[in-house]
Amino acid sequence: MRLAELSERSGVSTATIKYYLREGLLAPGHQINTTTAEYDEEHLRRLRLVRAMIQVGRVPVATIKEVLSHVDDDSLPRALRLGASVWALPQTPEPDADDEFVRGARSAMEELLGTLGWTHAREMAAVSPSFRSLVVATAALRRLGYEWPVETLLPYARLMRQVAELDMEFMESHVSEAEKAEVAVLGVVLVEPMLRALHRLAQEEETARRYGYA
Amino acid sequence: MRLAELSERSGVSTATIKYYLREGLLAPGHQINTTTAEYDEEHLRRLRLVRAMIQVGRVPVATIKEVLSHVDDDSLPRALRLGASVWALPQTPEPDADDEFVRGARSAMEELLGTLGWTHAREMAAVSPSFRSLVVATAALRRLGYEWPVETLLPYARLMRQVAELDMEFMESHVSEAEKAEVAVLGVVLVEPMLRALHRLAQEEETARRYGYA
Repeated sequence: MRLAELSERSGVSTATIKYYLREGLLAPGHQINTTTAEYDEEHLRRLRLVRAMIQVGRVPVATIKEVLSHVDDDSLPRALRLGASVWALPQTPEPDADDEFVRGARSAMEELLGTLGWTHAREMAAVSPSFRSLVVATAALRRLGYEWPVETLLPYARLMRQVAELDMEFMESHVSEAEKAEVAVLGVVLVEPMLRALHRLAQEEETARRYGYA
Repeated sequence: MRLAELSERSGVSTATIKYYLREGLLAPGHQINTTTAEYDEEHLRRLRLVRAMIQVGRVPVATIKEVLSHVDDDSLPRALRLGASVWALPQTPEPDADDEFVRGARSAMEELLGTLGWTHAREMAAVSPSFRSLVVATAALRRLGYEWPVETLLPYARLMRQVAELDMEFMESHVSEAEKAEVAVLGVVLVEPMLRALHRLAQEEETARRYGYA
């Protein structure tokens, strides 16, 4: 398809597409002659991903370039390629390692992973931004006087593991490795707000079922 | 306890506690004489909740007053009291009802609730901010070209229902109705970031288990 059709099908203006091309967020089209290039379905898919990161995820352009460099890195084995793509997204900043609540939360969360038998996550704890987010959230709870025991978190973690299995099955339905990595990125940017809304709706349903409105 | 001890145990300065008292975010202490008041465990608990809403939830003071007025409303039956407390928190704004993606998303999500048999949530759909968030997230996906079929969302929603059942059990372990409503508010402000982190960690564990790092 030509630039005009790519713009029409993606809902992104031709000026914006040209900007993404210049910034390297989108691979160049296949040059037919000096003034015309052809784009394919892969361009359309990538354009939607870039759009999602900018409009919904508010991800800076420089960060998007880094994310996409991992998405497209054929040299990485799948687990690292998926990990690197997601980890390159904006993440919770490193907390103060000397803070007593942070230290307490970190060892409690390491214990949680141990009890769960999540050995890979436990090994990656020192570098994983997801583990860092968990520590920061737990430290915030503790600083406010809410000390959730590990046992309270266990059943939540087990349900989240089932959610992750659904994510994997959905991801595996996509053929190419680059598409799989794209789906992992979309999961963070687009699917998490949906899960949160489903969770709150489920709470409303469960509240009404248990206690009624009378 | 006296003001100094309340400050010590909550980690909130006496000046800030006095400000919360003036703003009506905290009930007055039990006056012993003209210059001294006594505070109890309930004051401490409420102070932590206010602190969590301000520091973690970034909830404006006027909104906190509204949330607490529902938390403390003995005249409401439990389901309405919990609902009103959570709904008073900052929520997704109303989307443009004329937008074609919003209309499509709304009817797809009504269909989802019907298929799930979540009859209460379906009845409250027109007024629930949680349903609104789900519609907004779905419309964003569709506008970007990702049309998730209702069948893909069904197993996610069923798992989120199980998460909500855990929430309810945790909430029911708290004795008074006011405490239950407080727990519902804390769930939104403090527990959701934790669930999201657990979800991402579960993805990392599941990715490593399925594909390894080699």
